[in-house]
Amino acid sequence: MTKTIQTAVVGVTGYAGAELARLLLRHPRLQSAPPVFAGRVDEKDAARGGIPLSEIHPQLADSNGSGNLKLEPFSWELLASRGVEVLFLATPHEQSREWAPEALARGLRVIDLSGAWRLVDAANRAVYAFEDDGSELAAATQAQAVYGLPELHRARIAGARLIANPGCYATSIILPLRPLVAAGLVDLARGIVADAKSGVSGAGKAPTARTHFMYAADNLSAYGAFTHRHTGELLEQIGIDASEIIFTPHLLPIPRGILATLYVHFHEPQTRDSIAEVYHDFFSVSPMVRLFDKALPQIQYSVRTNYADIGFQLAADGRRVVIVSCLDNLLKGASGQAVQNLNVMLGWPEAEGLE
Amino acid sequence: MTKTIQTAVVGVTGYAGAELARLLLRHPRLQSAPPVFAGRVDEKDAARGGIPLSEIHPQLADSNGSGNLKLEPFSWELLASRGVEVLFLATPHEQSREWAPEALARGLRVIDLSGAWRLVDAANRAVYAFEDDGSELAAATQAQAVYGLPELHRARIAGARLIANPGCYATSIILPLRPLVAAGLVDLARGIVADAKSGVSGAGKAPTARTHFMYAADNLSAYGAFTHRHTGELLEQIGIDASEIIFTPHLLPIPRGILATLYVHFHEPQTRDSIAEVYHDFFSVSPMVRLFDKALPQIQYSVRTNYADIGFQLAADGRRVVIVSCLDNLLKGASGQAVQNLNVMLGWPEAEGLE
Amino acid sequence: MTKTIQTAVVGVTGYAGAELARLLLRHPRLQSAPPVFAGRVDEKDAARGGIPLSEIHPQLADSNGSGNLKLEPFSWELLASRGVEVLFLATPHEQSREWAPEALARGLRVIDLSGAWRLVDAANRAVYAFEDDGSELAAATQAQAVYGLPELHRARIAGARLIANPGCYATSIILPLRPLVAAGLVDLARGIVADAKSGVSGAGKAPTARTHFMYAADNLSAYGAFTHRHTGELLEQIGIDASEIIFTPHLLPIPRGILATLYVHFHEPQTRDSIAEVYHDFFSVSPMVRLFDKALPQIQYSVRTNYADIGFQLAADGRRVVIVSCLDNLLKGASGQAVQNLNVMLGWPEAEGLE
Amino acid sequence: MTKTIQTAVVGVTGYAGAELARLLLRHPRLQSAPPVFAGRVDEKDAARGGIPLSEIHPQLADSNGSGNLKLEPFSWELLASRGVEVLFLATPHEQSREWAPEALARGLRVIDLSGAWRLVDAANRAVYAFEDDGSELAAATQAQAVYGLPELHRARIAGARLIANPGCYATSIILPLRPLVAAGLVDLARGIVADAKSGVSGAGKAPTARTHFMYAADNLSAYGAFTHRHTGELLEQIGIDASEIIFTPHLLPIPRGILATLYVHFHEPQTRDSIAEVYHDFFSVSPMVRLFDKALPQIQYSVRTNYADIGFQLAADGRRVVIVSCLDNLLKGASGQAVQNLNVMLGWPEAEGLE
Repeated sequence: MTKTIQTAVVGVTGYAGAELARLLLRHPRLQSAPPVFAGRVDEKDAARGGIPLSEIHPQLADSNGSGNLKLEPFSWELLASRGVEVLFLATPHEQSREWAPEALARGLRVIDLSGAWRLVDAANRAVYAFEDDGSELAAATQAQAVYGLPELHRARIAGARLIANPGCYATSIILPLRPLVAAGLVDLARGIVADAKSGVSGAGKAPTARTHFMYAADNLSAYGAFTHRHTGELLEQIGIDASEIIFTPHLLPIPRGILATLYVHFHEPQTRDSIAEVYHDFFSVSPMVRLFDKALPQIQYSVRTNYADIGFQLAADGRRVVIVSCLDNLLKGASGQAVQNLNVMLGWPEAEGLE
Repeated sequence: MTKTIQTAVVGVTGYAGAELARLLLRHPRLQSAPPVFAGRVDEKDAARGGIPLSEIHPQLADSNGSGNLKLEPFSWELLASRGVEVLFLATPHEQSREWAPEALARGLRVIDLSGAWRLVDAANRAVYAFEDDGSELAAATQAQAVYGLPELHRARIAGARLIANPGCYATSIILPLRPLVAAGLVDLARGIVADAKSGVSGAGKAPTARTHFMYAADNLSAYGAFTHRHTGELLEQIGIDASEIIFTPHLLPIPRGILATLYVHFHEPQTRDSIAEVYHDFFSVSPMVRLFDKALPQIQYSVRTNYADIGFQLAADGRRVVIVSCLDNLLKGASGQAVQNLNVMLGWPEAEGLE
Repeated sequence: MTKTIQTAVVGVTGYAGAELARLLLRHPRLQSAPPVFAGRVDEKDAARGGIPLSEIHPQLADSNGSGNLKLEPFSWELLASRGVEVLFLATPHEQSREWAPEALARGLRVIDLSGAWRLVDAANRAVYAFEDDGSELAAATQAQAVYGLPELHRARIAGARLIANPGCYATSIILPLRPLVAAGLVDLARGIVADAKSGVSGAGKAPTARTHFMYAADNLSAYGAFTHRHTGELLEQIGIDASEIIFTPHLLPIPRGILATLYVHFHEPQTRDSIAEVYHDFFSVSPMVRLFDKALPQIQYSVRTNYADIGFQLAADGRRVVIVSCLDNLLKGASGQAVQNLNVMLGWPEAEGLE
Repeated sequence: MTKTIQTAVVGVTGYAGAELARLLLRHPRLQSAPPVFAGRVDEKDAARGGIPLSEIHPQLADSNGSGNLKLEPFSWELLASRGVEVLFLATPHEQSREWAPEALARGLRVIDLSGAWRLVDAANRAVYAFEDDGSELAAATQAQAVYGLPELHRARIAGARLIANPGCYATSIILPLRPLVAAGLVDLARGIVADAKSGVSGAGKAPTARTHFMYAADNLSAYGAFTHRHTGELLEQIGIDASEIIFTPHLLPIPRGILATLYVHFHEPQTRDSIAEVYHDFFSVSPMVRLFDKALPQIQYSVRTNYADIGFQLAADGRRVVIVSCLDNLLKGASGQAVQNLNVMLGWPEAEGLE
C-alpha cells in the first residue's frame, strides 16, 4: 500500500463536511483521524472548539465513529504541525474563495466542495455572492483549478493541486449528457431539458422556511428554473450554450438523493445498442458509474452509495431519448466525490474507501 | 335552486369512487344519499353488500359522513326503483366499456371515470386491455361521448349523456398546454416535454410491490416514458402529434397530488404579460383554474381542493418557458372533476359542492 | 338561525391562527370575514399589515378562501369600530396574559388558545415563561377563565367570558381518562402511563433544528418526559396527583395528528361492555367524540376533522386496559376546539361549522 | 486471524435474509460468498433459482455487492458440497421448525431468525402457527436452542449449535429492562409498560393492506396490545409474569427503526447515577449497546447500525423512570444480531463485520 497521508476538513458543521469526516475516518489509506474544524461562518462556530461532532450531528452518536471527532480551533499553524497535506474545504463559496489561495501558498493541496473555483468563465461565476475581484491571484488560482469530475477529467485531477468538487445537480446532469454530446449525437438546436429533483439535505442544515418539515413533507416544488447556479457548470462541462438547455430543480420530500430526468433529441435515429455503446465506452474505466441496461434507476438504489446510476428509454422513432440518472447528493454529489478525487489525485484506486 | 336529482356510484371500493361518494353526499343540490356499489371486480366485492363504506376505507370513520354509506348489491332494477338519473362509473376500463352502453340504453346519463370512452382515435385506445370490438354499438356510444374537461368542452358537456372523465396526468398537462398551442405560439417541431410526478394514490388501492411503503417511501422513480396510456388523451386534446411531445410520469413518495413540469419553445419571443394574457383569456370563465402570477404553484397548495394551479417562468430570451401545474389526482384529477362535469351537465354553477 | 356576530383573530401567522381564520370564514353563522392580525411577536409582523394571508401560508392560495384575508394593523379601536364581540388569541402565552384582561375590560369575550389561563394552580403555571405577578387583576381574570373542553365543562363554557382553550396533548389524554377516573374505576396507586405522539405542526411554524425536515423525517424521538407543560392540565382536569401519571410526548414524522396510548389499571376486573358503557354515558351528548367499539382508532381517521377518536383493548384479566385516542392537533387540539367553544358559548349547535 | 468458514442463507427473498446476505458478504472473516436460497414459501420462489438478488431487491443494484449473489435451488447435498458449516434460516416459523432439526442432524450449526425455537415454555409457543407436535425430536431440539441475545447469554451462545435469534421488538425491550429487573430494583407489582413503535420493514416484504403506502404514510396505529407474539420472549428473558407487563406495538410511517418507551416503578428511590451504574455494569463487555448519559436516543441514531441505544429520564421522586431504547429492526433486531451471534459462537470479536 502506498504511503498514507494526513488530511483535514474545514466545515464539518454542515451535512457535506460531516459526511466527509465520516468517510475519511474509515478510509483504509488514511490511518489517523483528520483534524476537523467548523467553518468561519459565525461566532458560534468559533466557540465550538473541543466539542465532539456528535453534538452537532447527533445521529453520529457512534461509540467509536466520526461522532467522537472533536472540533478544533482552526489555524494554519495547527495544520502544519499535524503534517496536513490535503485540505478539504466544505465552506461557503466566499470563504473558499479566500482560503484556497492561502492554502496553496502554504503548500497544501485543496479539494474545495463549494462553487468558488468550479467556473472558468467569469460570467458564469457572477451568480455567486463572492466578490470576483479580478486580481492576479484569483486568476492564477482559477487557472490551476481542475473541475473534479473524475469521469471527465481523470488525468488532470491526478496532477492537480486545487480541485473544484462539482455541484450535486451538476454531477447528476453532466455525467449522462456529456458522453452523448461529445459523440456528436445530440441535436442541440432542439434543446435539452434537465428536470432534476433533490432531497432536502441539498438545501443545507440551516433551519429555514423551505427546510421546515411542514413545507417539504407531502409536497413537491420547482424552483430556480433558468437561474439555478449550477447552470454554469452544465454549460462549461457539457460543452453547450445557455440557449441549448433548460434546467429546473425540484425539492423532494425525502432526506437524500437526486433523480434527474433528461430529454434529448438526436440528429439521426439511434438504437438502444448504439446508445449503450456510447455510454459503455465513455465509462469503461469508471468504477463509480453504473449503467442500467434494462430498468431505469431509482433514487433508492444509489442512496448511501457513491454510485451515479444511469439508464435510458428510447422512443420508437430512435430520435428521442429519456435518460434517468440518480445519485446521493451528499456522496457522489459532494463528499463521496471529494474522496474519489482524493484517490485519483494521489494515484490510489478510485473507489478506495467508497464501498 | 334547480330541482335536485338522484345519482349513484359504482366502484366505491377504490380511492376515486370513495372520494366521489363523499363529494356527492355533501353536494348542496343532491339531498338524498346516493346508492353506492362495489365494482364487479371480483366475488369478494359482490359479497360486500350491506357493509358500510368505512369498513373498506377506515379513514372514513365518520359518525355522520360517507363512512356510513352502505354498499348495495348492484342491479339495474334497483337504479330504476331509486329514480337514479346520473350514474357514475368508477370501474375498470373494460367494465365501463360494457356498462356505459347499457346504462344509456336504459335512459341514464353516465359519467365514466375510466379510460373506456376518452379516446376518439381507435389507435390510441389500443393501449387499454378492453376489447374494442368495432361494433356499431361501441361506435355509436363513442360518438356521443364527450371528453369531460369543462375548461375545454363546457358547451358540449352541458348537453352530454355520456361524459368520459379525463385521466389525472392528462388533466394536469392538457390544461396548461392547450391554451398556448391553440394560440399558435408553440414551436411544436422542437418538441414539448411533460415531466409529471404523482402521489401513490394514483397507483390504486390494491397492494402491489410498487405501492408497498418500502418501495415508495424515500424514493422517486420514473416509469412508462413514451408509453403511458394517458398519452392518447394528450395528443387528441392538445391537438398535437406523438412526435411532438415526450411525457414521463414519476412516482412520488406522497399520498396525493400531481405536479407537472412542462417545457415549451415558442415561435416568437414572448413576454410574461403576453403569456399571462393567453391564460387569463382562456380560463376567464373557469372557476377551478387558479393562475399564479408570481410564484410557481406547489403540490401542497391544491391538495384536497378541486383546483388546477398553473404558473410559469419565462427564459430571458422569451423563447422558452417552464410551466408548472398542480392538482389533486383524486379531485381535479378524478372525482372532483366528475362532480364538476355533473354540475356543467345539469346547468348548475360549475364549482357547486367543490369548495 | 340566531343572530350572527363578529369575531377577530390575533396571531394568524402561526398554524393554529391560520386554521382558525379558515374555520371562521366558512362558519355558517359568521357571515362577514373576521378581521385578522399578526401577533405582536416581532417588528416583521407589524410590517405585515395589508398583505394577504396566502403570502404567509402559501398553501392557502385560494382564489376565494382564507388566503385572501388581509392582515390588518391591530388596535382596540379597530375592533370596536368593526363591532367585534369575540376575540380569539392565538398568541404567545405571555401576550395572552397581557391582552386577555384588557379585552375583557373592553367588554369583549375572549377565547385564548395559549396556556396563559388554563391552570388554576399557580404552581402548575410556573412552567410558563410569563410572569405571574400575583396581581389582583390576574387573579380576577384567572377566576373567570373556564377550561375550554366542552365535553367536561359544557355548562360553564355556555356562560363564559374568557375561555382557556386546552393544549393539544392535554385534550388527547384528558378525554379518554376523565370518564374512567370520574367513575372511580382507576387504581391510581399503580400509576397511569400516557405515551403520546404528535405530528410536527405541534412544534410550531418557526424553523428550528427540531422542525428541520432532516431531523423529523424517518425519525421518532421522545422529549420532555415528566416535564412537559401540558402536565398541569392533566392533573387539574383528570383530578389526579403528579405521582399518579407519567406523560411522555414524542415527535412523529408526519405533518399533523396526535395518537395517545394510555395504560390504566382498574381496582376491579371490568368487561369490555362495562367500560364501553362508562364512555357512552360520559359522551352521550358530545358530537365531537367518536367511540370505537371494535378496532382502535388511527391517526389518519381524525386528521382534518374535529373529532376525538377513542378506542380500547382490555386485558384478559379485566384489570388492565390500553386506550388509544387520536385527534388532529390543529383542530380538536386547537382551532377546531376553539370554534366548538364559540358554538357552546353562544348557544349554537356544538358541531356547527366543524363538519 | 482465525480460520474462515462457509455459511449459507435460506430466505433471502425477505428483508432480513437480504440484509443478512449483504452483511455476510462483507464480513472480513468470511472470504467466499455464501450460497443463498429463497425460502420454500411458494412455487414462485422455487423458480427463482439463478436469478440475481438484485432482481428481487432492486435497491441492491451493486456492480460488485450483494445484488450480484445468485439464488440457487436448495438441497442439503449442495450445502455439503460447498462445505457449509453454519446455516442461517430467515424462513417462516413453521419452516424453521422443520428444517432446524434436519440441519442439526446433518452436522450443521443453525442460526434461526424465526420464532420457531425462541420459547422454552410451550404455552408461549402456542401463538405461532407451527404445529408443536410434542415429539422427542422437537423437545430435544428445543433443549439445545440458545436464545441469541449475546448481552444476556454470551457464554451459552459460544458453545451453541442452534441459536434462536430474538424478535426485533423483544430485543428493544429486553435489553433495557433485564438489567433493572435482575438487580431487583423494579416494583413489578405496579406493572411495566412497554410502548414500542416500529418502521414498516418490520411488517415484511409482502404487499398487504397494512404495508400499502396509503395506509402507513402520515399515520400511526397501535396493534396487538396484550397479544403480540413477542410477548413470550419478554416474559422468559426478562423473568417476569404476563400480569407484570403491558406491551403495545405501533406501526410508524418510516422504513426502518424501532423506538421503545418503557415505564418502570422502583421499590426504592434511585438516583441517575445508581441506574447508570446498573446499566454500565451489565453492559460493560457489550460493544453493541450504547448508553446515553444525557440525551435520549432517537431512531435516526441507530438506523443502519447494529447498535442498541439506551437512555432514560428519572422522575424527581426517584421512583419512576422512563427508558427509551432504539435499534434498527433489520440489524440489531434481526440480521445484525444474527451476525453478532455468529461471531460469539465462533469466538470471533463480537462486533466483527458490524461497523
